[in-house]
Amino acid sequence: MKEPVKTIRDTNDEARQLARRLVRGARFAAIGVLEPETGFPFTSRVLSGTDTDGTPVILVSGLSVHTTALLADPRASLLFGEPGKGDPLAHPRIALRTRAVRVSREDEGHVALRARFISRHPKAALYADFPDFTFFRMVPESASLNGGFGKAYVLEASDFLIESPAISDLAAIEPGAIEHMNTDHASSADAYARAFAGSKRAGWKVCGIDCAGLDLANGDELIRIEFEEPLTDANQLRAILVNLSRFASQK
Amino acid sequence: MKEPVKTIRDTNDEARQLARRLVRGARFAAIGVLEPETGFPFTSRVLSGTDTDGTPVILVSGLSVHTTALLADPRASLLFGEPGKGDPLAHPRIALRTRAVRVSREDEGHVALRARFISRHPKAALYADFPDFTFFRMVPESASLNGGFGKAYVLEASDFLIESPAISDLAAIEPGAIEHMNTDHASSADAYARAFAGSKRAGWKVCGIDCAGLDLANGDELIRIEFEEPLTDANQLRAILVNLSRFASQK
Repeated sequence: MKEPVKTIRDTNDEARQLARRLVRGARFAAIGVLEPETGFPFTSRVLSGTDTDGTPVILVSGLSVHTTALLADPRASLLFGEPGKGDPLAHPRIALRTRAVRVSREDEGHVALRARFISRHPKAALYADFPDFTFFRMVPESASLNGGFGKAYVLEASDFLIESPAISDLAAIEPGAIEHMNTDHASSADAYARAFAGSKRAGWKVCGIDCAGLDLANGDELIRIEFEEPLTDANQLRAILVNLSRFASQK
Repeated sequence: MKEPVKTIRDTNDEARQLARRLVRGARFAAIGVLEPETGFPFTSRVLSGTDTDGTPVILVSGLSVHTTALLADPRASLLFGEPGKGDPLAHPRIALRTRAVRVSREDEGHVALRARFISRHPKAALYADFPDFTFFRMVPESASLNGGFGKAYVLEASDFLIESPAISDLAAIEPGAIEHMNTDHASSADAYARAFAGSKRAGWKVCGIDCAGLDLANGDELIRIEFEEPLTDANQLRAILVNLSRFASQK
């Protein structure tokens, strides 16, 4: 009992994988910001998605406290990981230290970012174009991961961002690939959802593809499937999807 | 379309009631604090309960980032309101601006606070007495309530704290009253849970009674029942519980 408690574990692949799943599979996050003038911390809930390099993206109203705060001071914390039933502290969660970078309608990446986010959150199409709504890329610096009691890790941004020379090439073909999957292979998403997440629902659609995996949406539900290794060439995508389908059909 | 948007609604009883239900019925919260030295906001998840005056109470490990932060700067934000299924932003939530006051083992109120918290979170008995764990009363100053799209309110602490001349009298008889309910009227809690929250489970126990209502626990589930009016005299409790039972048996 006298031994000093080791509170932070060495980061391993299991921790990295958990971090990626929590961030990329999230529909929302608790955001912590600094209130202007008082500097008081303020927490709120925001819808979340990811950019093609795994950077979290949020869509927020300019009328909210958190947006006013982010425009005054970009430092923000994002807590991912839904608690669900049972002991709230037994569910894994991750807190990212991020700096918010606004993506205005005039910015080059806005159209693609918006399309990707709306694909994940179809209902957000109702208000995403309201004049007071805006996107932020939440560029992470580090993170605290808690995988359950006694399982604390400190992660670098590189542990949960996507690194690949193929990011922009894949981003360029992403809309076409999603369209192709949902039109010509409409049953694949249901098969993936069944095989990788045990879903018994029908009606899943691919809503995002990046170098590290793909996202499936079904109404307000979301499933993240990670590839075994990130793509290094966008041309590898077809083979990977065929492999996933083969695996799914055997389950 | 040119009319200025009214973003904050006038606080009414419906908003106050929602705020009380969110804070008092919570099993956990997202906490936002200021990291020492950097002043970066940091969010995390904590178990929550309430003191007999409705002040939120948290039990935290001294090894965590949020505890270190609270000891350096007591300002904290607590986000209550579980999202659950469906649109995450359609679920009500409330962010409290609070100042953390540590309740040490030597403090007068510690025994009662601990007993109340453990009654709500029985599993916390496993670690509540570890040397590095500590309770904080999170004294609220104000709150931002979001009842869903376009339903934003700013509340004062008095809107969701319990005000009654009977708080300390009721706190004194609370342990005996809980024991009595769970021993001599063991079926009452199940009847309350069925009548007031539609629960079909058996095994509910009363885990807290204050001037404004009572808390029922069943493993990791929690139900908050608010009285129509707060008690003004601890002697009113018996009649109120009898009335609740009568109401429940008629449902």
